[in-house]
Amino acid sequence: MEADSRGTAAGGIIHEVGLRDGLQVEKASVPWEEKLSWIDALMDSGVDIIQLGSFVHPEKVPQMADTDRLFSHFQQHGKKNGRVVLSGLVLNEKGLDRGLACGVELFCMGVSASETHSRKNTGMGTAEACERIIAMAKKATATGKQVQVSVQSAFGCGFEGEIPSERVLGIVKRYLEAGLRQISLADTAGHAQPFQVEALYEQIRGLEPETQLACHFHNTYGLGLANCIAALRSGVRSFEVAFGGLGGCPFTKVPAGNVSTEDLVHTWQRLGLRRDIRLDRLLELSRQLATFFNRGLPGLVSRAGSIVDFKPKIN
Amino acid sequence: MEADSRGTAAGGIIHEVGLRDGLQVEKASVPWEEKLSWIDALMDSGVDIIQLGSFVHPEKVPQMADTDRLFSHFQQHGKKNGRVVLSGLVLNEKGLDRGLACGVELFCMGVSASETHSRKNTGMGTAEACERIIAMAKKATATGKQVQVSVQSAFGCGFEGEIPSERVLGIVKRYLEAGLRQISLADTAGHAQPFQVEALYEQIRGLEPETQLACHFHNTYGLGLANCIAALRSGVRSFEVAFGGLGGCPFTKVPAGNVSTEDLVHTWQRLGLRRDIRLDRLLELSRQLATFFNRGLPGLVSRAGSIVDFKPKIN
Repeated sequence: MEADSRGTAAGGIIHEVGLRDGLQVEKASVPWEEKLSWIDALMDSGVDIIQLGSFVHPEKVPQMADTDRLFSHFQQHGKKNGRVVLSGLVLNEKGLDRGLACGVELFCMGVSASETHSRKNTGMGTAEACERIIAMAKKATATGKQVQVSVQSAFGCGFEGEIPSERVLGIVKRYLEAGLRQISLADTAGHAQPFQVEALYEQIRGLEPETQLACHFHNTYGLGLANCIAALRSGVRSFEVAFGGLGGCPFTKVPAGNVSTEDLVHTWQRLGLRRDIRLDRLLELSRQLATFFNRGLPGLVSRAGSIVDFKPKIN
Repeated sequence: MEADSRGTAAGGIIHEVGLRDGLQVEKASVPWEEKLSWIDALMDSGVDIIQLGSFVHPEKVPQMADTDRLFSHFQQHGKKNGRVVLSGLVLNEKGLDRGLACGVELFCMGVSASETHSRKNTGMGTAEACERIIAMAKKATATGKQVQVSVQSAFGCGFEGEIPSERVLGIVKRYLEAGLRQISLADTAGHAQPFQVEALYEQIRGLEPETQLACHFHNTYGLGLANCIAALRSGVRSFEVAFGGLGGCPFTKVPAGNVSTEDLVHTWQRLGLRRDIRLDRLLELSRQLATFFNRGLPGLVSRAGSIVDFKPKIN
């Protein structure tokens, strides 16, 4: 497969969101030094984007209290891997200002296609949230920052159930009209299935073929990797995944793990994609996380061991 | 989608192999009454085929010691679901004779495409094992029994690694030449990936379009459902799955769970397939199994709850 605009193989970009979507539902707070060592492993591994955290009120999600400090740290001390992009999730104008002040390189922000999810998560309905997000995205873009906008609950909602694709496409159209081209669909509730994934991304490509498509799946019902493969088939080129398969949005029903970074990279490498990423580092990190949280994590490859570059063990 | 020759929707046949492939690696032996209650739930659920066990030496796999008794029981007392087919796995001539004596309705038997796996599992190489299996299949067919022949380690081997597709196709050709049409590919080691699955089944359909294709995947590296969906796309119409996602062949490296029956049925029903199966009974059974084994099982839907026929829960 040919190289894409990011210089990676066509397996696309690996966007590690474990520090944000993985940690926000965990009760254990992660000490500063521990978190830095995880980021160190991620930078070693060669994943493309690392989401350091979200800009929420520290009382609401205490695990994100050190987000500004993390960005400032890397702004001051530099990144050991100069190629890696540091992203941050912002939910409102205040978060955006915090992010602009501390050195976020890629701003992620989004709107839920589910009216109920949107109100529970932000206190606003979809239409109002969309207007505010677009204004924020324009402001971040104007300062020279990269911006990725997302549609949450794009494949179904833990409260409302089915989400008509027209609702998703309506939000995407507004993003496109505002000149935003990096667009992610998030399966917050884990309801996506592969045929739906292919259909929805194809409809978006029908609206604007140059859209830089991203995806974010949860493995709630076992279809996480199947949906990533469907997305790959549909031209999606950025994959949001979380180390160990940790995670789940706290503002949805049945929060369950993200697609595991190491399981996705293992799958990609078995398909001949992204062989540049150091899977061994990701597997080590996943085992370190299991030790830290003192439980088995959902990711499977860290238990079974990689079969990329499998060496025969005859007798 | 149209109905197939079995009268099921195009989602195909669900072949429950948990009592065999699920239990053979478990240390706990299952009391007779408990096992009967599991079979009762499976018969209620409306799965198409239930594999009651394998005909191995009881000292080698003690969990299979009651296989003959189970078949005799249903032969004597009848099945509460007259449509269900009872299958048994046979490994050698002696097992076949036992199976013929106690009322097996569908005989399953197979050969490993991996020379090493074949020798470890049966003491014979692939070529010799193939000859014996074909002779056994002919004998069973001659007595009016249904027969499904399989190729184990068809997508890779825990000992040898990659298995050239020519080896798999060589065995399939011998089956077809012998007039055998029900052919299953088993991913004993969990090495399969969806693009490989599609390619291999298409090659088999190229050899003989009327082949009744079956598949058997393990979720060792997270791709179990993705591979089932790839198989569905490729015309496979029988899916071997295990309740709770239990299982794993004891004669392979890294034994790990089968695709979970309830997760597959949940996926199929979300695709509009096999809505006739009682998923609620399968989910209850999975929870009963978790209680019996006193641990969380790999299946995900029994934890998250079904979203088939999702009812909105707004506020």
